[in-house]
Amino acid sequence: MKNEEILNQLNDENIDSMFVYSPENIKYISGFYPSSTAYLIITDEPILYVNSIDKESAEEKAEIETRDIIKFSEIKELLTGNVAVESSLEFGMVKHLADDISSIKTSNVFTDKRKTKTKEEITNIKNSIGIAENAIMEIDFSSTEKFAAASLEFDMTINGSIKPAFDTIVAGGKRSSSPHSETSMNRVETPIVVDWGAKYDHYCSDITRTFIDTERQEEIWNIVLEAQKAAIKTIAPGVSYADVDNAARDVISEYGYGEYFIHSTGHGFGLDIHEDPIISNKAKGILEESMVITAEPGIYIPGEFGVRIEDDVLVGKNTKVLTSLDKKLDFTL
Amino acid sequence: MKNEEILNQLNDENIDSMFVYSPENIKYISGFYPSSTAYLIITDEPILYVNSIDKESAEEKAEIETRDIIKFSEIKELLTGNVAVESSLEFGMVKHLADDISSIKTSNVFTDKRKTKTKEEITNIKNSIGIAENAIMEIDFSSTEKFAAASLEFDMTINGSIKPAFDTIVAGGKRSSSPHSETSMNRVETPIVVDWGAKYDHYCSDITRTFIDTERQEEIWNIVLEAQKAAIKTIAPGVSYADVDNAARDVISEYGYGEYFIHSTGHGFGLDIHEDPIISNKAKGILEESMVITAEPGIYIPGEFGVRIEDDVLVGKNTKVLTSLDKKLDFTL
Repeated sequence: MKNEEILNQLNDENIDSMFVYSPENIKYISGFYPSSTAYLIITDEPILYVNSIDKESAEEKAEIETRDIIKFSEIKELLTGNVAVESSLEFGMVKHLADDISSIKTSNVFTDKRKTKTKEEITNIKNSIGIAENAIMEIDFSSTEKFAAASLEFDMTINGSIKPAFDTIVAGGKRSSSPHSETSMNRVETPIVVDWGAKYDHYCSDITRTFIDTERQEEIWNIVLEAQKAAIKTIAPGVSYADVDNAARDVISEYGYGEYFIHSTGHGFGLDIHEDPIISNKAKGILEESMVITAEPGIYIPGEFGVRIEDDVLVGKNTKVLTSLDKKLDFTL
Repeated sequence: MKNEEILNQLNDENIDSMFVYSPENIKYISGFYPSSTAYLIITDEPILYVNSIDKESAEEKAEIETRDIIKFSEIKELLTGNVAVESSLEFGMVKHLADDISSIKTSNVFTDKRKTKTKEEITNIKNSIGIAENAIMEIDFSSTEKFAAASLEFDMTINGSIKPAFDTIVAGGKRSSSPHSETSMNRVETPIVVDWGAKYDHYCSDITRTFIDTERQEEIWNIVLEAQKAAIKTIAPGVSYADVDNAARDVISEYGYGEYFIHSTGHGFGLDIHEDPIISNKAKGILEESMVITAEPGIYIPGEFGVRIEDDVLVGKNTKVLTSLDKKLDFTL
């Protein structure tokens, strides 16, 4: 079904053959995530080529025909007519695929299809969220930020997460004023921004909670929560990405902190932690049923601190917040 | 000095300007590892362009001039004369950099320079190895493979590792017979192949130990150790990659297990876990002083089990094994 749609779109794009190299796209189409060199060649149907290291498990898990990897000269012969590659393919690799690279097109077929999730994908994302939510209950703030991150990641791993969906952020005190603060060997202090996610069967989750303990922190936290609620309320099929972003941004701006909300309100995720759509007022497009996106407004006051609250939302006739964790969590230092 | 060498090589390659996008290459040349969109444009000298999220820390840490990121149209204007990009750059990105992409060259200047390590890089690698070596002492085999991996990674993280250098492998019993076995929720059984590494200041380490407890396992383990010793003994500046690989391969073949040594003997590493050179009998090239490579022969008997022993070696007049961990480690299940 999924693969038929991909073949149809390639047909619409007038693409005769496509070379696919991203392990996430290979997983998407075949169900198998390679551990070594592997690629798909799609002509009449997708065929998976794997390294000897992956042969046994590919034959067991892949839902499509599997063969041994071949030489570039042989790949070239199979790629006939209008040839496409992923926009993400390495330039050095493209050069091996054609004598005249200006003839090679890029197709967004995977980016497009992966924007909306299948039932099976949603189940994997829910499992990934469950692992992440349980782990935050085990976080240990008694030592350094790194120690806290390690305690959280430990719990995710023993419960089946392949690895963290991205570098776990534990940012305390002034360090929380950057959205991408590097988790440090400093002792944990409040407010503590924790941004984390698991990978279950290669599917991500993405959650942020900010642990607060002063009135000033609570004041900012309440504004961020109000902004997040406003954004989530707008999420429905047919609504523009910009409208969702503006819903959060307007709340924060009304309170006078607009300049401190320095990123967009959310993004899609699935096999990758950042997928289309981008929930930004600069992005064009409208929400579709079965998209899974984050809602994560934040306020970052330079030299003071930052607050972010992030939940995962499934777009639908009845839009559903997939995360079920309390917004405010108890903690001890 | 390092940057001067890069400018010289670009000059030799007749490249007038280069666009650099890999965070590892940006770190290599500037000392700063970006957390968001960033790139270098090298003309007369390298200039770093960073996103607002990274601005503060880039200005603090980068050793070269730092500016705000600019539009593709402005980048295009700066890229004059013969333009090069990294071979790893995304094809979709290359298309933004020139109207006629066939004019864009690839330069291996970073791959070439990063093959040999500076003193500072070697210090970082040594620190990364230290973190990894300490952590194996804390591994807990009393439960699942995932639990064992989590216990090891926990210790690396609390001691300053940014993240595992790659997905930690804990593969027990029959699962050890694949070199890339996925760490599972199965209970640990022997032999246990553990392949792990830390990242310290973005520099990797890469070690493997196999925990054994039967005579049959010990028989295979002894052959692998003899092969590894033979390989390490040959490592010196001027020796071909093939000769190192063959030294290990010959030992394993003599014992009749040649067909079960299904990968190459080693690889370079540094900011990336896999860098040039590839220590394979199919690779061309000779070892140079200050390369850092792995020596990791293995025997993988299908349906039975696998054994691998891996250490990290600094090539020099006095070649030095940087790992100092015992080859055989005590353990309890």
